[in-house]
Amino acid sequence: MVSKSQIKLVRQLGQKKYRDQHQLFVAEGLKVIREFVDENYQLHQLYALEERHFPSQHVSLVNQAQMKAMSDLKTPSDALAVFAMPKTQTSSQSDVVLALESIQDPGNLGTIIRLCDWFGIQNIICSSDTVDCYNPKVVRSTMGSLARVQVLYKDLQSWLMEVNDYQIVATSMTGQSIYEHSFDKPTVLLIGNEGRGLSKQLTELSHKTLSIPRFGGAESLNAAMATGIILAEACRNTSTEK
Amino acid sequence: MVSKSQIKLVRQLGQKKYRDQHQLFVAEGLKVIREFVDENYQLHQLYALEERHFPSQHVSLVNQAQMKAMSDLKTPSDALAVFAMPKTQTSSQSDVVLALESIQDPGNLGTIIRLCDWFGIQNIICSSDTVDCYNPKVVRSTMGSLARVQVLYKDLQSWLMEVNDYQIVATSMTGQSIYEHSFDKPTVLLIGNEGRGLSKQLTELSHKTLSIPRFGGAESLNAAMATGIILAEACRNTSTEK
Repeated sequence: MVSKSQIKLVRQLGQKKYRDQHQLFVAEGLKVIREFVDENYQLHQLYALEERHFPSQHVSLVNQAQMKAMSDLKTPSDALAVFAMPKTQTSSQSDVVLALESIQDPGNLGTIIRLCDWFGIQNIICSSDTVDCYNPKVVRSTMGSLARVQVLYKDLQSWLMEVNDYQIVATSMTGQSIYEHSFDKPTVLLIGNEGRGLSKQLTELSHKTLSIPRFGGAESLNAAMATGIILAEACRNTSTEK
Repeated sequence: MVSKSQIKLVRQLGQKKYRDQHQLFVAEGLKVIREFVDENYQLHQLYALEERHFPSQHVSLVNQAQMKAMSDLKTPSDALAVFAMPKTQTSSQSDVVLALESIQDPGNLGTIIRLCDWFGIQNIICSSDTVDCYNPKVVRSTMGSLARVQVLYKDLQSWLMEVNDYQIVATSMTGQSIYEHSFDKPTVLLIGNEGRGLSKQLTELSHKTLSIPRFGGAESLNAAMATGIILAEACRNTSTEK
């Protein structure tokens, strides 16, 4: 059985202040939940629809109405899990580190985390005003990739000033073509806000500015799309090394 | 003034059968409307909020409630236009032609049209069950790019069998790495459905299969994202030619 206070907690975890307070976050859907379990995330509680028969003893069975009360979705999943946020580790950094400034759209951050997971990029450093990676919409749009990518929130300006041994690469509409740049050094790739782009302060801390050549009439590319295209380019060398 | 029948028509144009019947579609937002006007799309009717002062005589001023009744958006724009669909032209084809099989998500098609516009690709051929490019959600997510990209709906299998002088390239999880393929010939790039990928029938009609190398744990990339990454690669030669 599930208690009212459990339902209340899951609902509260939709808000950042409660996630931070409890150090817990919610993941919905069996497939996504499994990805966090596989990566040894600590399962706090698992809720599943009564109709499903789970082998585990650590499952609270709930009815459709209870699941609907807990879920962030119009059509709730069969299962919903509450996980403990991992302790921040200073893990080894990959050859490409992504630094995000003020990304606001949960779908964009989720897509970027999924991209990093695809391209084997383990570290994302976000400015403190970037949308929270444990926001339910972000967790959902990472399709489980959040379990494998470390996302840290920092004062980007201070962090960049302390970065050593990495080439800091900014992105803009007017930089050198990505086709002409060789990502042959460890790189911090800076991606700016969806509307405003990268701030002057962060651009000034970069060693180089790159852009995606435009051949047609579109005014811009979506921030996640631009990130994907540049990451694909940055991984070209990784590919030839193998 | 705006009549009830005008409001009714705009609402009906949310559905494909009425768009096909009237050969009209709706675009919302001044910026997007301007892009269609700039590309000489025939303006059937323009509706704008009374508070805005439009210089044109061809504007019907409407109040907030009327705009809300016509708009597809929760927060309607200041302006909404009805355009005539362009007559199908057999225009010259770009070096890269995109062929889409059964893309279902309006946001994905819109993003792909915007990508094509960015990379200067003028022709998209869609299987007849691909989402309609004049669907209001598609129009919106193209951000005006639909005005510059020709989208045609065909029986893809028959069309591919008649294509000459183009290398037909399929995409899958197991093809040759895009990093190793040189897009040095005119190319038809085949992109499959979001969930199922490309059908066996169409894959068999292709000369080559490409994939985006994966270095991490993510199971897949979104169809529009994969399209963007491959188009960026396909345009590398265009870039060096200049």
